[in-house]
Amino acid sequence: MMNSTARRHHVVIVGGGFGGVSAAKALRHAPVDITIIDRTNHHLIQPLLHQVATGILSEGDIARPIRDVLRDQPNARVVLGEVFGIDLDTRHVMTDTIGERRRIPYDSLIVAAGASQSYFGHPEFAREAPGMKTIDDALELRGRIFGAFEMAERELDPAARRRWLTFVVIGAGPTGVELAGQLAELSRRSLRGNFRHIDPAEARVVLLDAGPTILASFPETLRDRASRDLRDMGVEIHVGTMVTNVDKKGIATNSLEPRWRRFEAATKIWAAGVEASPLGRVLATASRAELDRAGRVKVEPDCSLPRHPEVFVIGDLMSLDQLPGVSQVAIQSGRHVARTIVRRAAGDPTTEPFRYHDPGTMATISRLRAIAMVGTMRVSGVVAWLLWLCVRLMMLTGFKARLSVVSNWTVAFLGRGRAQRVITTQQIFARHALEGHRRPNAIAAASATNARG
Amino acid sequence: MMNSTARRHHVVIVGGGFGGVSAAKALRHAPVDITIIDRTNHHLIQPLLHQVATGILSEGDIARPIRDVLRDQPNARVVLGEVFGIDLDTRHVMTDTIGERRRIPYDSLIVAAGASQSYFGHPEFAREAPGMKTIDDALELRGRIFGAFEMAERELDPAARRRWLTFVVIGAGPTGVELAGQLAELSRRSLRGNFRHIDPAEARVVLLDAGPTILASFPETLRDRASRDLRDMGVEIHVGTMVTNVDKKGIATNSLEPRWRRFEAATKIWAAGVEASPLGRVLATASRAELDRAGRVKVEPDCSLPRHPEVFVIGDLMSLDQLPGVSQVAIQSGRHVARTIVRRAAGDPTTEPFRYHDPGTMATISRLRAIAMVGTMRVSGVVAWLLWLCVRLMMLTGFKARLSVVSNWTVAFLGRGRAQRVITTQQIFARHALEGHRRPNAIAAASATNARG
Repeated sequence: MMNSTARRHHVVIVGGGFGGVSAAKALRHAPVDITIIDRTNHHLIQPLLHQVATGILSEGDIARPIRDVLRDQPNARVVLGEVFGIDLDTRHVMTDTIGERRRIPYDSLIVAAGASQSYFGHPEFAREAPGMKTIDDALELRGRIFGAFEMAERELDPAARRRWLTFVVIGAGPTGVELAGQLAELSRRSLRGNFRHIDPAEARVVLLDAGPTILASFPETLRDRASRDLRDMGVEIHVGTMVTNVDKKGIATNSLEPRWRRFEAATKIWAAGVEASPLGRVLATASRAELDRAGRVKVEPDCSLPRHPEVFVIGDLMSLDQLPGVSQVAIQSGRHVARTIVRRAAGDPTTEPFRYHDPGTMATISRLRAIAMVGTMRVSGVVAWLLWLCVRLMMLTGFKARLSVVSNWTVAFLGRGRAQRVITTQQIFARHALEGHRRPNAIAAASATNARG
Repeated sequence: MMNSTARRHHVVIVGGGFGGVSAAKALRHAPVDITIIDRTNHHLIQPLLHQVATGILSEGDIARPIRDVLRDQPNARVVLGEVFGIDLDTRHVMTDTIGERRRIPYDSLIVAAGASQSYFGHPEFAREAPGMKTIDDALELRGRIFGAFEMAERELDPAARRRWLTFVVIGAGPTGVELAGQLAELSRRSLRGNFRHIDPAEARVVLLDAGPTILASFPETLRDRASRDLRDMGVEIHVGTMVTNVDKKGIATNSLEPRWRRFEAATKIWAAGVEASPLGRVLATASRAELDRAGRVKVEPDCSLPRHPEVFVIGDLMSLDQLPGVSQVAIQSGRHVARTIVRRAAGDPTTEPFRYHDPGTMATISRLRAIAMVGTMRVSGVVAWLLWLCVRLMMLTGFKARLSVVSNWTVAFLGRGRAQRVITTQQIFARHALEGHRRPNAIAAASATNARG
């Protein structure tokens, strides 16, 4: 139980991602009370979402309850709820938990609300091309991907079968590349022997990007290596290709040559861009701070909101020195503002600018293939892949599921299987054709008295 | 690819549970083609569902794609679909895959469609008290159970908080007992330190049964031991108690003394009874076979349908010699009818009656506590629990996730945590208050541009 008699400095943290949790942990021994608010119950290792979507890991392997992460930190409490407003004058955040609203006062506020998928003005694309930002996204995609192979196996019309076996990944940043690589490996390797009427290895995996290259943030040598690896695995790459429409049966694109092109594909995955949380706009409106093009809040060098030294914006929602939206920026900025708060609590008002130390970037392409840059070093192939494996495992420090991740990786990388391939009944009936019409959710499924077979 | 030129004897199996899969495997070297039809993509180890519902195991740990189970068996193909009719005269089964219907011809038919939860004429109870028969059920319950603790932590009203912290399990057979035991262990042990405003150990776990005792199928000594173990863990047991109504906030019951009683409980779980697949009625109507009280088909001693030696009914859908609805009956009857089919294919028309060899029964109560009977032996405590652990692990033979199960068990039994505690955004918004009103599914969640926090 939190000490509720002595009124201590109250730090409210909005968001339980890398930024929010790092800040909370760094405040562990500080004489403050912490409230961390998130609309999900879990702290998510987002860079591993593609492995849940493709059946290697379970959702629990990469998502741990925030309150479990902070279980041994008595000065932190966790609240399930969505923050929809911030009152900078009276210093309150407004939360909504499934319809019930509350105002929570703060002395210091850390806004680490992150970013969601951006559809660049076409939110209607989301229905047919889910993004890759949440556990819900990954489970939805898992159902769609494995469901597509099921439908293809059953389909008699060759064109429709081809459509079920075509997977388009939109956006060739690390997430898109990792997903396309996994889809290729899944179809060429993991599903071997599973089907009788189709050869899953004939699945077509298409990777699109509007920009002139894949993995724009990597140097050319590594990009070339990644392209070669992907093509070796049978991934079709189309750069300079803009998506103009997404529908149930495919996508339409626009590029220099050919001018217009359509890809017939049942499964579309959107990994094309991010847009900062709408809390950025809330803060900007209230404080006259500026937003950058992605909706991120331009902060002072110490990550504080202009004219509001008691409010900090960190991670993907922060616009500072053109830092990228990666987990390390979130983690380091979280720790930085925690240090500032600790100093202030001790009566020291000095602020220090946030300096980012880039520990390197990496992307995995498939089993035994990855690219990485650490400082001036460029690594690819097996060495980079082993590095990727170690770094990801380190991210799971303290995760109860770490053992389970290792065993699931053993199955997938040494064996050729994937352990986590469940499609729920809800997904089967929600997704195709009868959308919502029959058996709309698991509760209805439980009550249905239909045959198992 | 299946050999489609030579027309071989075609065995259709309805249902990919223990019965159907055992039959298919036993036909592995037989000169027959096999089509196994299920409405889910997975073969499920149902006796471990309670561990998914309470956050120990992931769904992939206990559910493996049927087509992966049969990947190395070229004479078997798997079809995703629901069987809604059987034409005994022309020898066809009618399937429906999300709205698309087909007729599949058979030479021999094995109906292993199993059973679903029975609400004894009150299907409306299902919405508030989900059952425990499918992966969807277990994931729904996982969201409700962990969600209830989240809501309790946030609740200010003591009565409402108490309601969120009360869990009622209806039905005290092995499933109900295992679930009640896990709920007690979860609240007393696994969640320790996770909350600041509530003490999860104060959760009230109520186990109800309409009959005069828990675990009616076990001998008295073991029942007494189980009752004592459950009470030690703080489980309230009420036998001779009938549920008369279930609503959002609790359940109403009827017993001898007190005559009427209400339990205020946010989370209700139905483990009270099973009812055979409606395919039982389909078969009975078409063949004039009889059904027993649970809707199971009364079969000939060799498990065949009366007057239809080419049709077999096995497992939970079969009524024969008052055999119980347990996995071993399904497995052994599946193998038995497969042997009959093999003999017939070899020109030998003799049939043999099915003889069940009872390998024993067991139920786990919590970590280190179980009861088991094997032959005339009665075991309880740690020895029974280790036996339970080994038998369950054997059930997972060939499961890719076996390693992952062992590691998840290590976390739960040696440590005190639970690795699989994800609540999806869809569940948070689907379940309480705003049911279906906001963010009705994962797709909508993906497109929502709300703040993460």
